[in-house]
Amino acid sequence: MKKLIKGGTIVTSADTYKADILVESGKIVAIANNLSDADAEVIYATGQYVLPGMIDEHTHVESPFGGTITAPWKTESVAAAVGGTTTIVDFALQTPGESLQAGVNTWKERAHGQSAIDYGFHIGVTDLHSETIREIPTLVEKGIPTLKLFMAYKGDLMIEDSTLYETLEAAKEVGALVMVHAENGSVIDLLQKKCLENGQTEPYYHAVSRPIEVETEATSRAIAIAEIVGAPLFIVHVSGEEPAERIREAKAKGLPIYAETCPHYLFLTTEELKKPNFEGAKYVCSPPLRDSKHHEALWNALQDGTLQAIGSDHCAFNFKGQKELGMGDFTKIPNGGNGIEHRLTLLYTYGVTKGRMTINQMVDLLATTPAKVMGLYPEKGTIAVGADADLVIFNPNERKTISHVTSYQGLDYDMFEGFDITGVVKDVFLRGKQIVKDSKYVGTLGDGNFQMRKPFGLCYKGVATVEKAKAEV
Amino acid sequence: MKKLIKGGTIVTSADTYKADILVESGKIVAIANNLSDADAEVIYATGQYVLPGMIDEHTHVESPFGGTITAPWKTESVAAAVGGTTTIVDFALQTPGESLQAGVNTWKERAHGQSAIDYGFHIGVTDLHSETIREIPTLVEKGIPTLKLFMAYKGDLMIEDSTLYETLEAAKEVGALVMVHAENGSVIDLLQKKCLENGQTEPYYHAVSRPIEVETEATSRAIAIAEIVGAPLFIVHVSGEEPAERIREAKAKGLPIYAETCPHYLFLTTEELKKPNFEGAKYVCSPPLRDSKHHEALWNALQDGTLQAIGSDHCAFNFKGQKELGMGDFTKIPNGGNGIEHRLTLLYTYGVTKGRMTINQMVDLLATTPAKVMGLYPEKGTIAVGADADLVIFNPNERKTISHVTSYQGLDYDMFEGFDITGVVKDVFLRGKQIVKDSKYVGTLGDGNFQMRKPFGLCYKGVATVEKAKAEV
Amino acid sequence: MKKLIKGGTIVTSADTYKADILVESGKIVAIANNLSDADAEVIYATGQYVLPGMIDEHTHVESPFGGTITAPWKTESVAAAVGGTTTIVDFALQTPGESLQAGVNTWKERAHGQSAIDYGFHIGVTDLHSETIREIPTLVEKGIPTLKLFMAYKGDLMIEDSTLYETLEAAKEVGALVMVHAENGSVIDLLQKKCLENGQTEPYYHAVSRPIEVETEATSRAIAIAEIVGAPLFIVHVSGEEPAERIREAKAKGLPIYAETCPHYLFLTTEELKKPNFEGAKYVCSPPLRDSKHHEALWNALQDGTLQAIGSDHCAFNFKGQKELGMGDFTKIPNGGNGIEHRLTLLYTYGVTKGRMTINQMVDLLATTPAKVMGLYPEKGTIAVGADADLVIFNPNERKTISHVTSYQGLDYDMFEGFDITGVVKDVFLRGKQIVKDSKYVGTLGDGNFQMRKPFGLCYKGVATVEKAKAEV
Amino acid sequence: MKKLIKGGTIVTSADTYKADILVESGKIVAIANNLSDADAEVIYATGQYVLPGMIDEHTHVESPFGGTITAPWKTESVAAAVGGTTTIVDFALQTPGESLQAGVNTWKERAHGQSAIDYGFHIGVTDLHSETIREIPTLVEKGIPTLKLFMAYKGDLMIEDSTLYETLEAAKEVGALVMVHAENGSVIDLLQKKCLENGQTEPYYHAVSRPIEVETEATSRAIAIAEIVGAPLFIVHVSGEEPAERIREAKAKGLPIYAETCPHYLFLTTEELKKPNFEGAKYVCSPPLRDSKHHEALWNALQDGTLQAIGSDHCAFNFKGQKELGMGDFTKIPNGGNGIEHRLTLLYTYGVTKGRMTINQMVDLLATTPAKVMGLYPEKGTIAVGADADLVIFNPNERKTISHVTSYQGLDYDMFEGFDITGVVKDVFLRGKQIVKDSKYVGTLGDGNFQMRKPFGLCYKGVATVEKAKAEV
Repeated sequence: MKKLIKGGTIVTSADTYKADILVESGKIVAIANNLSDADAEVIYATGQYVLPGMIDEHTHVESPFGGTITAPWKTESVAAAVGGTTTIVDFALQTPGESLQAGVNTWKERAHGQSAIDYGFHIGVTDLHSETIREIPTLVEKGIPTLKLFMAYKGDLMIEDSTLYETLEAAKEVGALVMVHAENGSVIDLLQKKCLENGQTEPYYHAVSRPIEVETEATSRAIAIAEIVGAPLFIVHVSGEEPAERIREAKAKGLPIYAETCPHYLFLTTEELKKPNFEGAKYVCSPPLRDSKHHEALWNALQDGTLQAIGSDHCAFNFKGQKELGMGDFTKIPNGGNGIEHRLTLLYTYGVTKGRMTINQMVDLLATTPAKVMGLYPEKGTIAVGADADLVIFNPNERKTISHVTSYQGLDYDMFEGFDITGVVKDVFLRGKQIVKDSKYVGTLGDGNFQMRKPFGLCYKGVATVEKAKAEV
Repeated sequence: MKKLIKGGTIVTSADTYKADILVESGKIVAIANNLSDADAEVIYATGQYVLPGMIDEHTHVESPFGGTITAPWKTESVAAAVGGTTTIVDFALQTPGESLQAGVNTWKERAHGQSAIDYGFHIGVTDLHSETIREIPTLVEKGIPTLKLFMAYKGDLMIEDSTLYETLEAAKEVGALVMVHAENGSVIDLLQKKCLENGQTEPYYHAVSRPIEVETEATSRAIAIAEIVGAPLFIVHVSGEEPAERIREAKAKGLPIYAETCPHYLFLTTEELKKPNFEGAKYVCSPPLRDSKHHEALWNALQDGTLQAIGSDHCAFNFKGQKELGMGDFTKIPNGGNGIEHRLTLLYTYGVTKGRMTINQMVDLLATTPAKVMGLYPEKGTIAVGADADLVIFNPNERKTISHVTSYQGLDYDMFEGFDITGVVKDVFLRGKQIVKDSKYVGTLGDGNFQMRKPFGLCYKGVATVEKAKAEV
Repeated sequence: MKKLIKGGTIVTSADTYKADILVESGKIVAIANNLSDADAEVIYATGQYVLPGMIDEHTHVESPFGGTITAPWKTESVAAAVGGTTTIVDFALQTPGESLQAGVNTWKERAHGQSAIDYGFHIGVTDLHSETIREIPTLVEKGIPTLKLFMAYKGDLMIEDSTLYETLEAAKEVGALVMVHAENGSVIDLLQKKCLENGQTEPYYHAVSRPIEVETEATSRAIAIAEIVGAPLFIVHVSGEEPAERIREAKAKGLPIYAETCPHYLFLTTEELKKPNFEGAKYVCSPPLRDSKHHEALWNALQDGTLQAIGSDHCAFNFKGQKELGMGDFTKIPNGGNGIEHRLTLLYTYGVTKGRMTINQMVDLLATTPAKVMGLYPEKGTIAVGADADLVIFNPNERKTISHVTSYQGLDYDMFEGFDITGVVKDVFLRGKQIVKDSKYVGTLGDGNFQMRKPFGLCYKGVATVEKAKAEV
Repeated sequence: MKKLIKGGTIVTSADTYKADILVESGKIVAIANNLSDADAEVIYATGQYVLPGMIDEHTHVESPFGGTITAPWKTESVAAAVGGTTTIVDFALQTPGESLQAGVNTWKERAHGQSAIDYGFHIGVTDLHSETIREIPTLVEKGIPTLKLFMAYKGDLMIEDSTLYETLEAAKEVGALVMVHAENGSVIDLLQKKCLENGQTEPYYHAVSRPIEVETEATSRAIAIAEIVGAPLFIVHVSGEEPAERIREAKAKGLPIYAETCPHYLFLTTEELKKPNFEGAKYVCSPPLRDSKHHEALWNALQDGTLQAIGSDHCAFNFKGQKELGMGDFTKIPNGGNGIEHRLTLLYTYGVTKGRMTINQMVDLLATTPAKVMGLYPEKGTIAVGADADLVIFNPNERKTISHVTSYQGLDYDMFEGFDITGVVKDVFLRGKQIVKDSKYVGTLGDGNFQMRKPFGLCYKGVATVEKAKAEV
């Protein structure tokens, strides 16, 4: 059935204007003044924004970690939907010794029929050898044009620098994008052992064992390797000033380095990790939360274009039974926070209404650029004729307070508990189907489809250094 | 009469997509698939781009300079139109001793009925005193929300640093934007005299007397003063690496510093000034052309967001009778180049097709961001429902070679003579009226209207430092 | 009479070693183990350091300022002596309309027969014209190879940028060194007026009207001008991080930029200016004291070689009758602090014993490099055979507390009142004559001589850019 | 027997002055005017410089490498002597599986009775475990306070980052200094394999497989690790601009990072590696020679204090029979160049006489600072009463041309073949014994002694960050 969204203020990364939107067969087919269509269901958006469905390029749903597993698709995809996010790109992981495709398959099976929203997968490379490298072109053809490597987690996910090099090289050939978790795993591993030897077992030592220098260093190293290869690189979850500065320098040299930060690095600090009764464990994620001086630096890095995206890095564990696994040994605390549901409202409240970014920049950071970088564009990430009708009606005047009790996230706590929010997601449409109505989920699990993502995304475009490198090789 | 542009690929700073555009009463009223309207004239754009009309925020049309006057509205506005530019913001100048309004009035009269395209005016402040400052709010109300100050041209336009401070402060109150020409006029004046004393009278000494250090220095100084005031600042015609680096540093600190470069700084070098038979004079503009090493630095600064616009700084003199005034004394060569006509095609050819920027970035730099910064948005600078139907149909496959003989610019030479161009402006619409057809001007002088521009443009948005400064004062 | 200093630990900027020193005819004639000389008076220095007499390259003794005059030679030169300083280079000022030589003569007359220690003069240029420029070579021949220009004090001492250029150029020809006071006088003048208009008349507004941006900017500007000329430059009294960073960048480019800071910028903060009962006026100097965050930055800049000297900028006024002139109008507070007496002990205590610099670095910063930069070397600034026997016996273990009551400075207050000091100047010799004994002055006014200083000092040496510039011009 | 050196111009890192030097029992006992001593042999040095014996902190004498061995003590120590170097600190290597002490012992045995000059050893750590760490204090007690780690040479010498951390930590406790070879071994190993797979076997590919990014990266990484530990660090053989910039940034933050470059990085370029007939192999060293643009950057880094030393990295192989091992496979070319003999004259000629550094700076870089950093001071590295009489009489006016034929180095080629030299080493004294006379070696192998070097050298002094770190831990 057709839908007609009337009277709203459409916001894209470029524009803000009033117009009506006509949706047919899941697509936007017309944007015009005073549209009418007798066959269409009419939804009124007067006094509200109509935003593109948000893209979250960084989630870990139903993902095994240290003997436990993160919250499942059936809750978290619904939470995403209610939060205005209509597509996520989740991290699948290769099992060492197995193929990349096998990893993707496992994750696909978990999501299948369980997701309220559209989704894709990155593949986390943990065991690279000649056969794996040969798999990359095939995976790209199957809609997986993004790979992630970990410079942290020694003895587990951590790869060698030469592996990063080879992956970048192979990826570049077929337009795949390499993402890195940039922390020095060798030093962290040592510092963790030292803390434990010294009886420093509390959650706070998670941060102590991962000082920002290990992130700055690894960021610098990953950029250097990408520079030699002449390939684009996407650095996930930048947590503070110095790593951001390394990225800024790289971009100033013309290198196609892209990077994201996450809401928790903008709003929370290391102090949370000191909460008593082991509650600090709720804030254990990697890289760790930093001192508040980094907040301003990150806002500036978002404003000046050093950072291009704000992913949630949603990797959600309950406190009871999950975070508690690390009592007496912080290295056993499952790493991860939450954010899939409140990312948009947090950014609108503390970004847009505080004058730190325009609403167009917000849309760009949360939807348009992620869609372009991740190969989801032009179907996703914007409001334009021909695009998927993934739409969010957003009331900028309504207020609420975040609480895990009233959230759709299936968790017994929320990192942003008690944060006051201005602006509420009212209605959400996924390819034209209304899945959220008046802030309540009204969809069906399985509404969401796997997305065939495209290679040679934005990181490959408009960057002469990449083109030149290509021409030269 | 309505118009229907069918089959083109619409490009905005955010999006690229195929759709039809319906224009009515000079406005875009619908963008949709398969639009039809029996009352509308249909223009086919299949296989071509439909771009927003370009904005040139930096022109000097029919402007007196050193006893002569630049090329007039009747030719240059047509050249702009044919080049795909539908709005320019031209520089009016205060006459010392007179009011700002008087300066604006003079320029308005010259343009009235003579312009093929829409236009607005900046006012160049040359004589600031308490009364002039009181004029600023009034001018803003009358659609002049941008002021320009000159740190160069000692004894003529050059202002004191305290004047820059006071203007920034007064402008900030009413959301006006201060633009600066950043070169150290005191040192340049001395170096010019030294050159002449040494018999160095040829055009090349224009560049020698304005080394990049005088620009870097003044850029640094203007930023420092804006930082104290807590006001946004727009730096015109950035010519090279070091000034761009100062701007990058300022943005990294969160300061709302915006800047433009110009086509000639991207494509031409100091070597041009050495051409024999006084032909170097054709390339005399300020700041001067730089060594080719700066080209790469400027492309990077456009790519990483350090620079937000590419204005033509069109300030066109004939070689015969005008540039020749400086034979035997380079300081008497009227300063200025051309670019109003070929800006878009140059950038498309050497920017987009060479992989240095995406076509969306090009639209952003040449139209959308200038429109937002200059207070012309949302009427101008984008393709969206409700916007003025300023549209360009652009054939990306046609080629030609630039020559002053075949140009609409009323000049006896062209700085870009002989440049091969890929991509040609075919049709141009100004508020719905077709003014260029198959690359030929078909409009009427006087089609263009004076634009009431709005204060508190983009430079005031999304920058917490400005908001905070406001709150604190 | 000969003197033999036995058993001390000699410290130079390079070395620390035990040896005896034989002095004859005011010169060091031998340094050896177990020296003996029947004709020599023996002074024992066991357990103590023997340092070269300190050089203070930045003082304003008996200098008129705003209708009053700084403390005179007869007290301040004695205070310097007692503090271990045996040579100062004081600032003489040109009277506008008169010659540079006349300015020097006036200052020379004041010092003549009144100084306990050796002295030279810089000439402060306030009125540069073709005749003044012609004077520079003559002054250099007469032992005045250093000139100072003021970028601050609009309407009074402030010079135009072109004057800085011309002075640098003329100075370079004859090996003279240009020193600049780098603050933007035009902006300061405006900010002062604004403060007063707003009724902000208290001493604290002195700092408000001179934000660090005006210093950073002027530092950047002076460096740019020196870079164009290809001349060395000495920047006086660097007060904080950002100006120091500009100097660091310049040195990294190979430019011969030298700079000093002062003790008060290392130890005091803007907070002092808020002291009640107008006592903030005691701390009014230019540039103003800064936030404490700058202290660390300045220590680092001393350690990494960005700053080469620590002059006192001693410019001493009494609170009563002098500082009080500015009650009700901070712009009338005579600008200046003190430091001529306690510079060495402050740096030893808070620099050397706190691990921020070695004692050799301290000697380098307070004596050797200033001597070399100022053309006093090799007679002054070190302990070596052939050098003047300007020697200080320093007991590193004795402690005391600074108070104006027990100081030799002729002042009714001390900026460093109450500072605890480790290390005390015991004995001082000026060209072999003992002028301080057991921390008491035992000399005669008039012991000090005018020093004929030499051009082409350290700033001209070992810097290929200067040599090359020379060769090229 | 006593010696009296008369009439020379003594140069230290601080001072230049004329005086006589009396030497007794191998020590300098007096420096004075007109010294006489009936028992002393008199050497006249009129018109010549008397320099301290140079220190070379970076040599590899008689060191096994890839199945061959570098030139032996009996020739290279003599070459050093003739070149004005009286002490070297050579690199001993731990054999994996054995103790550090065993490595030192092996090297000591080789040097014993075979060295013309004094010497010490660094120990190269290749296999760190808990026992090795416990050895560090013992080694320090035995005069080995410097350790070297390799971030390059994967599968051989390359250590993990955690090893660097642990070594820095253990070293800091006892005042030992960690030195690093900063290149990313993992990436180099991969690039080498890629080159060979592509048939790129010529010497030039040595440089291709070690791009400067791998050095910049590793430099950045080593600094980050030292910053976390709060320990000083010495980075050997810095080859270009970007690594030097990382060091500059670290020093600006107050970190005690010290670094050296080598003569070949100042004078030679990558182009040498392209020489035909496999002659490029003569220039194969690691890091590789760089483009000439880096020369200026390194001179600036020496001038502004970013780099503190210029070691030869003498690691000398013959072309015949040794370098030739790598014909057909550049990875088999023994890595290393020469410089032990010509370091001083090269620096004097191209540094001092070209105006790039003063002679005092040269002495500082080649003798005084290395002595202080390496724990050889105050016996070595300066001319002062009490110091070892290691002295060089240097004729600044004599000229010659470097040739391996006339050199004392036992090699069949010289990297600096054909370089014209101004300034010649005439006489050299080792602890008072003349070992070079009129540029000819007149000593006896075995004159040189092993030097017990001291911990807590210069890198630990005057750096508040180290002291503070200590206090805090």
